[in-house]
Amino acid sequence: AYSSGSKKVTLIPGDGIGPEISAAVQKIFAAANVPIEWEAVDVTPVRGPDGKFGIPQAAIDSVNTNKIGLKGPLMTPVGKGHRSLNLALRKEFNLYANVRPCRSLEGYKTLYDDVDVVTIRENTEGEYSGIEHEIVDGVVQSIKLITEEASKRVAEYAFQYAKNNNRKKVTVVHKANIMRMSDGLFLRCVRDMAQKFPDIQFEERYLDTVCLNMVQNPGKYDVLVMPNLYGDILSDMCAGLVGGLGLTPSGNMGLNGALFESVHGTAPDIAGKDLANPTALLLSAVMMLRHMELNSHADKIERAAFETIKEGKYLTGDLGGRAKCSEFTNEICIKL
Amino acid sequence: AYSSGSKKVTLIPGDGIGPEISAAVQKIFAAANVPIEWEAVDVTPVRGPDGKFGIPQAAIDSVNTNKIGLKGPLMTPVGKGHRSLNLALRKEFNLYANVRPCRSLEGYKTLYDDVDVVTIRENTEGEYSGIEHEIVDGVVQSIKLITEEASKRVAEYAFQYAKNNNRKKVTVVHKANIMRMSDGLFLRCVRDMAQKFPDIQFEERYLDTVCLNMVQNPGKYDVLVMPNLYGDILSDMCAGLVGGLGLTPSGNMGLNGALFESVHGTAPDIAGKDLANPTALLLSAVMMLRHMELNSHADKIERAAFETIKEGKYLTGDLGGRAKCSEFTNEICIKL
Ligand SMILES: CC(C)[C@H](C(=O)O)[C@@H](O)C(=O)O
Ligand SMILES: CC(C)[C@H](C(=O)O)[C@@H](O)C(=O)O
Repeated sequence: AYSSGSKKVTLIPGDGIGPEISAAVQKIFAAANVPIEWEAVDVTPVRGPDGKFGIPQAAIDSVNTNKIGLKGPLMTPVGKGHRSLNLALRKEFNLYANVRPCRSLEGYKTLYDDVDVVTIRENTEGEYSGIEHEIVDGVVQSIKLITEEASKRVAEYAFQYAKNNNRKKVTVVHKANIMRMSDGLFLRCVRDMAQKFPDIQFEERYLDTVCLNMVQNPGKYDVLVMPNLYGDILSDMCAGLVGGLGLTPSGNMGLNGALFESVHGTAPDIAGKDLANPTALLLSAVMMLRHMELNSHADKIERAAFETIKEGKYLTGDLGGRAKCSEFTNEICIKL
Repeated sequence: AYSSGSKKVTLIPGDGIGPEISAAVQKIFAAANVPIEWEAVDVTPVRGPDGKFGIPQAAIDSVNTNKIGLKGPLMTPVGKGHRSLNLALRKEFNLYANVRPCRSLEGYKTLYDDVDVVTIRENTEGEYSGIEHEIVDGVVQSIKLITEEASKRVAEYAFQYAKNNNRKKVTVVHKANIMRMSDGLFLRCVRDMAQKFPDIQFEERYLDTVCLNMVQNPGKYDVLVMPNLYGDILSDMCAGLVGGLGLTPSGNMGLNGALFESVHGTAPDIAGKDLANPTALLLSAVMMLRHMELNSHADKIERAAFETIKEGKYLTGDLGGRAKCSEFTNEICIKL
């Protein structure tokens, strides 16, 4: 689908360091002659005719038309009425599966050197339903919503992902010993899906057990699929094992499109100072290229980035170096 | 209250390796001349006059009378009607705060050497409310219940614990950015309590951020307080950092008593073979002694156990040694 001619991609540069790291990615893509055309949009909420704040229509239209986007970090507007803009985008575009690969980088030493896991997180419901009530004064309930529909589609995505990416095993992460009905339903959906992928190993593990084993022996795990909140936790934890959110990419897969994003913050303290590390956004963009079946461009860029990190001459401050964002970016471009 | 004469303590030896590690603890306590008297009880569910299975009355009476107990691992009976026996005990005795200290052991090397954190987990509600419904076919909700009462008492426990144990800081762990009302209420309760303990530092952190930072820099944290499920996850993760559940103690604090327990499994594969590691149960028993203000006995036993582990001559298989449970136990007794 994406193989002929130049394809348009929506770019949401984001806030804080967003614009600089987005510019870095654009520069690297140009150096690699990636056949895409960027369409930059602003998603800062605007007040609509109904008086409510929402994502500007132009941004929505762009993603809906291009069906693919890259997004920098977004600030959550302050004030009671605002929910996270990141969440609003997931909802608006029905981005049902959040995929975060975490791999030990050869060039960047942490306590672990054998991490190679992919967390696949249900991205639309669970603890993120947004349904909460105060029953009486001082008694609140939040509803964790699990549906068969959403559980099945993320389960299918996980196995299909494992298959397409030559991964060996899928682990479903749950607390069905406690939330017997909700996690029980999720678990059953994944278990049923496993039947359809006999070539992929399948295992069921409690969330607490996975957390414990992950810090002791991350090599045990491969692809992990789980409800929304567990994915939020485990993906951050796994990112921690390989160096943090500045190094790990993320993709949100939807029914009608996909949005790739760096999941670190906007880092207002260093914004505009040419100090930010564009790696997470760049690797997210590389994931995006693979999704667009531009694999050779993806491989080339990834290799150049990893080599630059491995050489260690042009590392940004967060990686223990003294290079500017632009120097790191230039070095990657030179390698291309 | 516990200072004069010999005090009775309920002992629930538990299943699988439970009896052997309980016997080990009893032996060590005898060697240390701890002035307590054990009252062993069986908690295997029995069918009551109403036809329902429940904890035997004798066991309930024993805990209610002694107000203090030590418990080995329990198997969850198989079958639909049974919930975890561990949970049933927490409920029966209103054990509202679960305390799990995780400290790097000098004698047992892991990737981390500066872990010294205590997770304090709300132990009665949250995601463990047990309230779930199938709304329509394929749509399930589980209710996360947060009350001001339970949040306040665990908050108070956490600060009081920090104060009594000379800890510097309390971190509340939450996802109030997502569960604004439920985690919001919990957060406010802890925040309010912090005001009453001006000598203890206080910080608020997102659960995902804590998971990420914990694997990179656990030295950042001290005492952590959080809703039920987050405590389940974080306590296991922290245990992983220092060597696993075989090495970490746990205490459940109630309104009318306290129950200390090892939180590892029953290890049926090695049960009865004199191969189990009694450390987690022993350190839980040490926590119990401190709770009973038998501090000098607690210190003495703890020192002997740590020395035995540090010397490394009598380690059980899970710690990479070849000693039997009885050899490890004897060595501790000799040191006493
Ligand atoms: C920013 C926040 C709402 C979000 C989440 O909780 O999902 C973030 O932690 C993430 O993982 O994308
Ligand atoms: C056994 C299980 C029900 C329990 C829990 O989920 O709380 C355990 O993991 C724990 O941490 O004590």
